[in-house]
Amino acid sequence: MKTSRRVLGVDPGLARMGWAVVESRGASPKLIGCGCLETSPRAALPVRLAQLHRRLSEIIKEYRPEIMAIEKLYFTKNVSTGIVVGQARGVAILAGAMAQLAVEEFTPTAVKSAVTGDGRADKRQMGKMVQLLLNLKRLPRHDDTTDAIAIALCAGAVKVLN
Amino acid sequence: MKTSRRVLGVDPGLARMGWAVVESRGASPKLIGCGCLETSPRAALPVRLAQLHRRLSEIIKEYRPEIMAIEKLYFTKNVSTGIVVGQARGVAILAGAMAQLAVEEFTPTAVKSAVTGDGRADKRQMGKMVQLLLNLKRLPRHDDTTDAIAIALCAGAVKVLN
Repeated sequence: MKTSRRVLGVDPGLARMGWAVVESRGASPKLIGCGCLETSPRAALPVRLAQLHRRLSEIIKEYRPEIMAIEKLYFTKNVSTGIVVGQARGVAILAGAMAQLAVEEFTPTAVKSAVTGDGRADKRQMGKMVQLLLNLKRLPRHDDTTDAIAIALCAGAVKVLN
Repeated sequence: MKTSRRVLGVDPGLARMGWAVVESRGASPKLIGCGCLETSPRAALPVRLAQLHRRLSEIIKEYRPEIMAIEKLYFTKNVSTGIVVGQARGVAILAGAMAQLAVEEFTPTAVKSAVTGDGRADKRQMGKMVQLLLNLKRLPRHDDTTDAIAIALCAGAVKVLN
């Protein structure tokens, strides 16, 4: 049985897309790299989508994860947010599919539950556990990056438990 | 002044994505090709998005349009429809951007107005005018294809008027 795997977690958004590469080896996951891709609201939509797709493809090429983990999205604040996030999510998933990664989707509840043991954990609890589990001196500057780490941790945990 | 241009109209959707290539030469537009890309609900989301992206990229390669025209989307029936359509829309726009097409967005009202003269035209009126303007014996089997033709006609008309 393979006991470790390298997961790219993605928290999709048009203005900011969090990403994190986590290697899960049983109970001791390790953060290999993370960051937040930003696009300018002044740029045209096609340019922004192409930037996100290209930069995420470069990250996949550099870090060679086996799995892309992304949040399963059912609801957003409103319909037009859903359309915007959906567009960014589409090009992120496409980058994974084009690089032959297995793309796995997790509900927000599953992510919270895997990271804190509580499916209704709040942002603060999530941040604390992310920091603790990966032994980080501080949390990333953007919440989007922390969210991406949490999603990657969830995907790693799920597989090791299976 | 260049008086003609070749437009790829796209009506995005995950299960069905309508497309149409229209050449606009002043008042006499010509339908060069059209169809409807379908993906199976039984296939995984990454596979479906990759299929749509690949097939649309092939169409661009084959027909060599200069412009991609796509509907500006603000509202859908509900949030989860918005997310699903957004994902398909994202990979369609990306296919255009990656092929260096100019991607132009039009509101449904602008499309209706350009095709029928009435921004509140219904589906039947739109179909009639599409058939008339392009001198078609019959309308395409899928509404998605007819919608894609209408969007392409709108983009052609707008530019020739400018």
